[in-house]
Amino acid sequence: MAKTADILITGGTIATLDERDALFSPGALAIDRDEIVAVGGKDDILSSYQGRETIDAPGSIIMPGLVNGHTHAAMTCFRGIADDRELMDWLNNYIFPAEARNVDPKLAYWGSLLACAEMIKSGTTTFSDMYIFEEETARAATQAGMRCLLGEVLFDFPSPNFKTPAEGLAYTEKLIRKWADDPLVNIMVEPHAVYTCSPDLLKAAKALADCYGVPLAMHLLENKSEAKQIEERCGKRATRFLEEIGLLDEKFIAFHCVVMDEEDIRLFSDHGCKVVHNPESNMKLASGVAPISALLQQGIIVGLGTDGCASNNNLDLFQEMDTAAKLAKAALLDPTVMSARTVLRMATCNGAKVLGLDRLVGSIEMGKKADICIIDMNKPHLTPMYDEYSHLVYTVGGADVDTVLINGKVVMKDRRLLTIDEEEVMRHVRGIALRVKKSLRG
Amino acid sequence: MAKTADILITGGTIATLDERDALFSPGALAIDRDEIVAVGGKDDILSSYQGRETIDAPGSIIMPGLVNGHTHAAMTCFRGIADDRELMDWLNNYIFPAEARNVDPKLAYWGSLLACAEMIKSGTTTFSDMYIFEEETARAATQAGMRCLLGEVLFDFPSPNFKTPAEGLAYTEKLIRKWADDPLVNIMVEPHAVYTCSPDLLKAAKALADCYGVPLAMHLLENKSEAKQIEERCGKRATRFLEEIGLLDEKFIAFHCVVMDEEDIRLFSDHGCKVVHNPESNMKLASGVAPISALLQQGIIVGLGTDGCASNNNLDLFQEMDTAAKLAKAALLDPTVMSARTVLRMATCNGAKVLGLDRLVGSIEMGKKADICIIDMNKPHLTPMYDEYSHLVYTVGGADVDTVLINGKVVMKDRRLLTIDEEEVMRHVRGIALRVKKSLRG
Repeated sequence: MAKTADILITGGTIATLDERDALFSPGALAIDRDEIVAVGGKDDILSSYQGRETIDAPGSIIMPGLVNGHTHAAMTCFRGIADDRELMDWLNNYIFPAEARNVDPKLAYWGSLLACAEMIKSGTTTFSDMYIFEEETARAATQAGMRCLLGEVLFDFPSPNFKTPAEGLAYTEKLIRKWADDPLVNIMVEPHAVYTCSPDLLKAAKALADCYGVPLAMHLLENKSEAKQIEERCGKRATRFLEEIGLLDEKFIAFHCVVMDEEDIRLFSDHGCKVVHNPESNMKLASGVAPISALLQQGIIVGLGTDGCASNNNLDLFQEMDTAAKLAKAALLDPTVMSARTVLRMATCNGAKVLGLDRLVGSIEMGKKADICIIDMNKPHLTPMYDEYSHLVYTVGGADVDTVLINGKVVMKDRRLLTIDEEEVMRHVRGIALRVKKSLRG
Repeated sequence: MAKTADILITGGTIATLDERDALFSPGALAIDRDEIVAVGGKDDILSSYQGRETIDAPGSIIMPGLVNGHTHAAMTCFRGIADDRELMDWLNNYIFPAEARNVDPKLAYWGSLLACAEMIKSGTTTFSDMYIFEEETARAATQAGMRCLLGEVLFDFPSPNFKTPAEGLAYTEKLIRKWADDPLVNIMVEPHAVYTCSPDLLKAAKALADCYGVPLAMHLLENKSEAKQIEERCGKRATRFLEEIGLLDEKFIAFHCVVMDEEDIRLFSDHGCKVVHNPESNMKLASGVAPISALLQQGIIVGLGTDGCASNNNLDLFQEMDTAAKLAKAALLDPTVMSARTVLRMATCNGAKVLGLDRLVGSIEMGKKADICIIDMNKPHLTPMYDEYSHLVYTVGGADVDTVLINGKVVMKDRRLLTIDEEEVMRHVRGIALRVKKSLRG
């Protein structure tokens, strides 16, 4: 007799992104409560399960929701505020003053909620976030029904949220305790970078992360001038310094890693550190091209992130995959590096490994949480289709995502968000943007 | 008393892309028959004109339709057929056999019509095309209502359409004569490349182009091995060789130009040659990064193209703009090069100049043909908006285009194509793809 599941998804091609890259076409999967309870060929699943609700998706690709390994969600409020500028001009004359004068809990909440809307609409179901007032980002993710791994940004100087690093650490600890049992919100410890955090702050951050068994994540070696500055200050490469003060381990996540040399890569490999690649931001800010192929060759697990909207300027991971695959080829003059399949795994299962969430998400497998993205392939720019992986990386855009489930719950159906009032969020953020604009005048 | 125009477009921000980059917000424009008869502030235009039809587009950006400077439209039939491969493996084991066994007038027609559907849906109103059976591409463009500049590809060896270069030239001449007075279809002469065309063929092609006053366009210096091969065969750089046989002038259009050195750039500048940049294809095929900033500094006019769908794998010029702007910054480690405005002009007014169509299209100005693209900006990923140019390059994707007019005629309204039956085209191309797939087995 057929078992009953809450939701059946049938009719499309299922790209599981499991260890074997299994594809089922036509496939089906069964979801009960928050969990995937079965996945396989359509006939097999339909003969074993009946669903209280069925989503029929013929001609679609059904895949795990994407994992955005690094962003600053609330910075949607600063989307496109200043482009095509020297980094120091960009930071000192636009980003820093805009933040100092405007970032408050309200901006953090509405900016994060707008980011959630954009991410769901482009197929992302999990994001990793570093910014200010992360309690507000947690609230926004909860409203949106998104999975996340959040950390309050920590540095030596005051932020709009804390006067001292100790206050920042205390705020982080409060977040960790408050959200400990939440099904969607996870907390980590996020010192900003080596050049903005004292060794004492870094060590205290590590102690806090270890105390609660959560990841520690930071920007690292984003561009040459940063690398040089750290070498001058510490008398050694940043990675060697981090190793010496005890930060490098399997729960260490580094963002950017553009200027890594062979020793850096070896240290990361030896300690099992994780990396998030942000190719579009690195290009737009002229940071350079991260040596991702070399990292992968050394067995380092690499995820993919969009970075924030002031340096991208969107949160579309499908576009980011396309860029990641093409950029590596152009940089190494080798068309075989960073294949579609490699990049797709960075944005799904390996992204989940980077964040330590791979037991929960990153692939469509029995026992994992139902974070699913359904893409309507019946469109001129997706026709014909010779290879699913090729299309997912080189032709699909975020706007092709049709339906999204997170933790077993449908959060977008036929491109209509079910957890967020789009018009309300946009109205709030437009109001915030007017205030930001005024604050930069005079 | 108010004059009457066929169509008024009102309510949005008009980005004219004229010489002064004039913006009108809220703006309006009046179209009579195929022509823009007025553009300006909304109140000004509405007090002077009444429209038989009005398109009200509040919260939109209204801009000139994009110009795709180089593609192979019918190759949509080979979209994603082989990725992540060495160039010679890709060409010899996939593209060449797939073409030799499958390209016929039917593939050329349906593949081109699918390309037109995709291009209109992503805001492109004019395209430049090089392929086989271009009469079919002209028919498809006519059906779609798209503006184009087409050329039959010419080389020394037989093509599916001709046995000898002389037949290819005769076919081209017939095209030129047949379409001479067409309002949308323009013909040029397109020898494939220096390494595939004898000097005699190149000279005959140039004579034909001069005889009818049409442009001559070709692939040039796409990668290092091509450049080396030509130097070995001709005993000199390709550009010097082309100058000596008389090809370089203001009607010469070169595609790719990845490995240009200082002398190549000087020769192009001296002769007023035009260039089309294809960054995504150059990245995907690992050709390298074209020195576009250097070309622009020497006053060379550069357009933007997607190349064909076997090496991109889409025809979305909005995504191509984003990549063009970011790639230059990463390659030169300078965030100020290739600003959003520069790139936007490459894809509109300068693209039109490259194709010799700038008296007709490329900007929204009185007297120009009404090739217009309306983008709905009321979306989470386009909110907030501090700068229109930034958004058009760094955040808008082809899927955000709402309505498109070409030559005064609405060809897409609210994302519904009015000149093409999408389902019919996709059905035909899927059938062709099945045949292609079979032809590559065994």
